Amino acid sequence: MKEKLTLIKVGGKIVEEETTLYKLLDDFAAIEGYKVLVHGGGRSATKLAERLGIESHMVNGRRITDAETLKVVTMVYGGLVNKNIVAGLQARGVNALGLTGADMDVIRSVKRPVKDIDYGFVGDVKQVNAMLLGDLIAKGVVPVMAPLTHDGEGHMLNTNADTIAGETAKALSALFDVTLVYCFEKKGVLRDENDDDSVIPTINQVEFHQLVADGVIQGGMIPKLENSFEALEAGVSEVVITLASAINEQGGTRIRK
Amino acid sequence: MKEKLTLIKVGGKIVEEETTLYKLLDDFAAIEGYKVLVHGGGRSATKLAERLGIESHMVNGRRITDAETLKVVTMVYGGLVNKNIVAGLQARGVNALGLTGADMDVIRSVKRPVKDIDYGFVGDVKQVNAMLLGDLIAKGVVPVMAPLTHDGEGHMLNTNADTIAGETAKALSALFDVTLVYCFEKKGVLRDENDDDSVIPTINQVEFHQLVADGVIQGGMIPKLENSFEALEAGVSEVVITLASAINEQGGTRIRK
Repeated sequence: MKEKLTLIKVGGKIVEEETTLYKLLDDFAAIEGYKVLVHGGGRSATKLAERLGIESHMVNGRRITDAETLKVVTMVYGGLVNKNIVAGLQARGVNALGLTGADMDVIRSVKRPVKDIDYGFVGDVKQVNAMLLGDLIAKGVVPVMAPLTHDGEGHMLNTNADTIAGETAKALSALFDVTLVYCFEKKGVLRDENDDDSVIPTINQVEFHQLVADGVIQGGMIPKLENSFEALEAGVSEVVITLASAINEQGGTRIRK
Repeated sequence: MKEKLTLIKVGGKIVEEETTLYKLLDDFAAIEGYKVLVHGGGRSATKLAERLGIESHMVNGRRITDAETLKVVTMVYGGLVNKNIVAGLQARGVNALGLTGADMDVIRSVKRPVKDIDYGFVGDVKQVNAMLLGDLIAKGVVPVMAPLTHDGEGHMLNTNADTIAGETAKALSALFDVTLVYCFEKKGVLRDENDDDSVIPTINQVEFHQLVADGVIQGGMIPKLENSFEALEAGVSEVVITLASAINEQGGTRIRK
């Protein structure tokens, strides 16, 4: 039987403010068994870009990444945010290892083809190499993954953290019994968006289609859940959508096949 | 018998300009056997600090590292410069892994005690954990080390790249037959500082003391050579001081016990 592994994805907001970061690090350190952390960092990137006089352009929630912006996100995601988390986890007894997709060729991407929009140096994940990663995890190392990959031709690529979490969870599910946890600004998927306590405790694929048909689930939550079902189909055991402050609790919405 | 490992230390100047960086990456990729790269990045840090309106203060060639400067060097060394090298090596078929001392707790330091000068968040290396590093190297992974360590209490520390190279070489010499190569702006240790071709091919400890007594070796080269002999005493097989562009040639100055 495969051993349990928890892969937590947290957005930039959580890891960029000291109070929420420290709480997250404490909670993450308390998770038993094998684990992986995937983080964002968009707010810090926007702030640094501003200070450098580089304009941030977002389209559909994605950052247009020109050469200057790529330098900014490489510095912020791969350097500042990642190493801050790694040092914080080491202080809590977690043997963290900060990674981008370029490190040990863990995640290789292709530069997003230009259709209507030129996103610039943005990567679409092509391949996750989980072998060395799996070895390290089995030795007690805890990967901390920044939202950056590479193209195998010498270029870093800005890459969506949700995608990195999903693709890494899928690849690791060949070696571990993986629970993928998406931290979210709400307690879970809500039946009524105006009622924070109306969390739907579990959703399977049949229920999902019904909830979409009924208009209960809409907007950005639809692709999030579609990605979750895709991860489950690819071998991930469970996907949880919950508050970052509740990763050690039984709450949130559990997505199951 | 231990297997050969070459540890190359290059300064910031080499890795921060495209032409010299690409030449270095090609040369480094061509080195046979196990290898490690340690890099600087000071010029890029100074440039970024300037753009952010942060003044750079240097004392005895060391950067005074206040909280803002620590963020800058963490971004530049751990993010921009390190990941650029890692992606460039991956493109050349080298399975590079970018590391700071915080990653896998590879190098732990103490914040330099304040005596005459307060260097701020600068680390003096206390301990190198070569075990996991050695395992990875034996699996074909090539560590690329940024001049940053941590204190085990959640803080990153700015750390001299020469020191990181020396201490890592010493620790790895328990597992490998280590040659430590310091890349330098001259062809080696010169008998006559005005004659670039007056390279002293080999220096042992007795010769070193004589060359210092004769005034041939002076200034910053004295501590560099003292550190080299210390590394040799601690188990490193050979220390080479040479041009970055000549790491695959037999030139330079070879320091032996």
